Amino acid sequence: MSDAPRLTHIGATGEAHMVDVGDKGETVRVAVAEGSVRMLADTLTLIRDGNAKKGDVIATARIAGIMAAKQTASLIPLCHPLMLTKVTVEIAEDAALPGLRVTATAKLTGRTGVEMEALTAVSVACLTIYDMAKAVDKGMEISGIRLVAKTGGKSGDYRNPEATA
Amino acid sequence: MSDAPRLTHIGATGEAHMVDVGDKGETVRVAVAEGSVRMLADTLTLIRDGNAKKGDVIATARIAGIMAAKQTASLIPLCHPLMLTKVTVEIAEDAALPGLRVTATAKLTGRTGVEMEALTAVSVACLTIYDMAKAVDKGMEISGIRLVAKTGGKSGDYRNPEATA
Amino acid sequence: MSDAPRLTHIGATGEAHMVDVGDKGETVRVAVAEGSVRMLADTLTLIRDGNAKKGDVIATARIAGIMAAKQTASLIPLCHPLMLTKVTVEIAEDAALPGLRVTATAKLTGRTGVEMEALTAVSVACLTIYDMAKAVDKGMEISGIRLVAKTGGKSGDYRNPEATA
Amino acid sequence: MSDAPRLTHIGATGEAHMVDVGDKGETVRVAVAEGSVRMLADTLTLIRDGNAKKGDVIATARIAGIMAAKQTASLIPLCHPLMLTKVTVEIAEDAALPGLRVTATAKLTGRTGVEMEALTAVSVACLTIYDMAKAVDKGMEISGIRLVAKTGGKSGDYRNPEATA
Amino acid sequence: MSDAPRLTHIGATGEAHMVDVGDKGETVRVAVAEGSVRMLADTLTLIRDGNAKKGDVIATARIAGIMAAKQTASLIPLCHPLMLTKVTVEIAEDAALPGLRVTATAKLTGRTGVEMEALTAVSVACLTIYDMAKAVDKGMEISGIRLVAKTGGKSGDYRNPEATA
Amino acid sequence: MSDAPRLTHIGATGEAHMVDVGDKGETVRVAVAEGSVRMLADTLTLIRDGNAKKGDVIATARIAGIMAAKQTASLIPLCHPLMLTKVTVEIAEDAALPGLRVTATAKLTGRTGVEMEALTAVSVACLTIYDMAKAVDKGMEISGIRLVAKTGGKSGDYRNPEATA
Repeated sequence: MSDAPRLTHIGATGEAHMVDVGDKGETVRVAVAEGSVRMLADTLTLIRDGNAKKGDVIATARIAGIMAAKQTASLIPLCHPLMLTKVTVEIAEDAALPGLRVTATAKLTGRTGVEMEALTAVSVACLTIYDMAKAVDKGMEISGIRLVAKTGGKSGDYRNPEATA
Repeated sequence: MSDAPRLTHIGATGEAHMVDVGDKGETVRVAVAEGSVRMLADTLTLIRDGNAKKGDVIATARIAGIMAAKQTASLIPLCHPLMLTKVTVEIAEDAALPGLRVTATAKLTGRTGVEMEALTAVSVACLTIYDMAKAVDKGMEISGIRLVAKTGGKSGDYRNPEATA
Repeated sequence: MSDAPRLTHIGATGEAHMVDVGDKGETVRVAVAEGSVRMLADTLTLIRDGNAKKGDVIATARIAGIMAAKQTASLIPLCHPLMLTKVTVEIAEDAALPGLRVTATAKLTGRTGVEMEALTAVSVACLTIYDMAKAVDKGMEISGIRLVAKTGGKSGDYRNPEATA
Repeated sequence: MSDAPRLTHIGATGEAHMVDVGDKGETVRVAVAEGSVRMLADTLTLIRDGNAKKGDVIATARIAGIMAAKQTASLIPLCHPLMLTKVTVEIAEDAALPGLRVTATAKLTGRTGVEMEALTAVSVACLTIYDMAKAVDKGMEISGIRLVAKTGGKSGDYRNPEATA
Repeated sequence: MSDAPRLTHIGATGEAHMVDVGDKGETVRVAVAEGSVRMLADTLTLIRDGNAKKGDVIATARIAGIMAAKQTASLIPLCHPLMLTKVTVEIAEDAALPGLRVTATAKLTGRTGVEMEALTAVSVACLTIYDMAKAVDKGMEISGIRLVAKTGGKSGDYRNPEATA
Repeated sequence: MSDAPRLTHIGATGEAHMVDVGDKGETVRVAVAEGSVRMLADTLTLIRDGNAKKGDVIATARIAGIMAAKQTASLIPLCHPLMLTKVTVEIAEDAALPGLRVTATAKLTGRTGVEMEALTAVSVACLTIYDMAKAVDKGMEISGIRLVAKTGGKSGDYRNPEATA
């Protein structure tokens, strides 16, 4: 087999499959991902000062993100099931966006990275924010979902130069 | 109750809850959502011409998006369970991005809109593309996830002026 | 068949099955259930005034209860899948217990009652409270999970004389 | 950080999150939980001698409890996913209650305790019993759900003085 | 479009999708499916007279089949989510096979057929039997999974001439 | 306890339970399973040359099988949750059948075998093929689902003499 770049989820005969990670070592792996929901300034004000109990919209989105991280292998066809040892989701207001910025961290001692778990947590937290505000703002946009950094595993540490978190 | 804008998922005492849609009429509702995965040009080439069977990466992401639409109420805390009558996911190459553009359509005869189902399909299709290419391109970014259009329901039809699909 | 009381989930040959509700009419059905978590007074104080953001423990349990209501048919073998039109979960402090009281309401326009959905929401909200406080109080007890009231359906309205909610 | 009691699922800034168990050692952990369903004496007789095949109601509830233990991390927002090595559910008649008593045991070699898995198994087994008998007895009550004992882990062994199992 | 036979789950551009059933009428639809597990005669004897409580293996497989029917739309990518009004699973010994024969019935008032729900119930009941007996008989074979009959829907009634149930 | 063959999922008092695998060693375990869908020759032609994009029916079934393997412990009541390190599903045409043959491989470093994961992948891939072709061929039959081979674990390696894969 040549050294040309290859899609790792594709087998010798070209079909998508779940790659064998059985020979990888168990190491501590951490991944941080980010994303944001851009909205009208009024929508952001409503989330912060509106009819909701202080923090209830944010708390709902944060819980949704954490729970979604645990469903990653059920959602992404070729992800391995794994036993996350930690998931956190932080949601911060950004008046300049205007909107909310979501950052998620996933951690594992295992054979495979946790980038997809962090990215899934961010995606579902953003979708939950969208859901709760969509009646007043149909033009919201979820953007900038990307890996911020990862540590552990054979491919080594990575820091995304474009990340804001 | 005043006519000031309100977050509809928030009850009289301020807690997030699942709003009552029992009094809404059953109408045909359609929602279209879009999003994209920006990647290196080489990554796009690899997805198209690489070691995968023609279309297998795209087919995997499309199936993941369709299946995720059916999990929307399990993922988004305050979404109502509903019986989608149709889900489609289209994925197209965009050399100018460079990357892949995902468009999803969800349809229902029911009491509540299907925006979240279309947006969830787009999000998970994008995450699946990310998963399959992440070994060769860690800097990919998922962006522009938004509602393109919706029809049906009391709030009427909507077309997002920023949508590209 | 005699008029002797029968377990409705049991077929003619004695096996448990999911009963046929296809001939029942679609009516508005509401069920309210309650339950409580009894804990040390210090634990209740910690939940209210401790290191958590105001309301974050309660918000987490409330969201868990709402999401669990939507999983009822996946958890209870002979429950019918159904499309809840509303779920709410309220959690209140009771210094006399001492502990937290959980009340859930489920609503549906459909062919089958929603008692199990309300009871499942209460149960999982109580379990979530237990989970968050168990490191400081292993003797907590979940009790008094019962139907408070139901309306709609052929068997008519019901109000539990022992209910506290 | 002071030695005052703290809610362990709450981070430095007060939000609920999934705590990091990555540094905990892998040990054998066992948890036993109990609970009961109080019902009319006639309902208990019907479950035992009624139209059901001998044991079919009990068998259904037992299987539901075992399967629910495996869904604990999907139901309880801040529970870690884990690989149970054993789950058993026992259900016994108690004519004095009158009703059924449920005891569940969960076991794991891992980094986190299995109390929530045992408690979830008990809760869902009780809910399943309730579901199967609710057509003849709407006043049933699920009570006394608590940890009976746990072994393993840093916090050591525990035996609940109030437990009946 | 010509009248040549077409795969209905394939769209105009050739991709697999979930077909639109929104225009189909709501009718009563019933599907019956069957399948069997062939095993050694000694294995069948062990299931019937062995260390298990009478009927417990069969009861477990029956419950698994019923619960699986409710997961059909989560398992089969292009199946529509639907609200089954009834599911039954029957399991009978067949000394001549030797083995167990499984028959499942699914029923719905809705826009789409329930063949897949009945077939999924049969498949998972057979897998559950296999699981419980595999320690003593690794050569078991699951066979003859097919539709027995269906009624309702535009395509009309169907009876499979090869079915045994 | 005598040496007579016993059903391992049955406890001392005769109830089905999830057996304790905590004392088993962690070894590399691989299981291969197979099955087939027999159909009309015209149906096979339609899948290969019909209106679907080349390979899209097969790709959909393959993805469904891989995703189902990860749901095994949710579907089969007494299966242990486990962390598959690899799953592959191969689908080949067999003009002589006529139909499609499915082979799945599951791999794990763990305490319990992965036969059920391989068999579940095969079953759901076959069901997915059935679903996509059922509008043109209601007489299809899923057959020959069996273990082809397994390696690892205390019971040693096994090769099914009847397997075709």
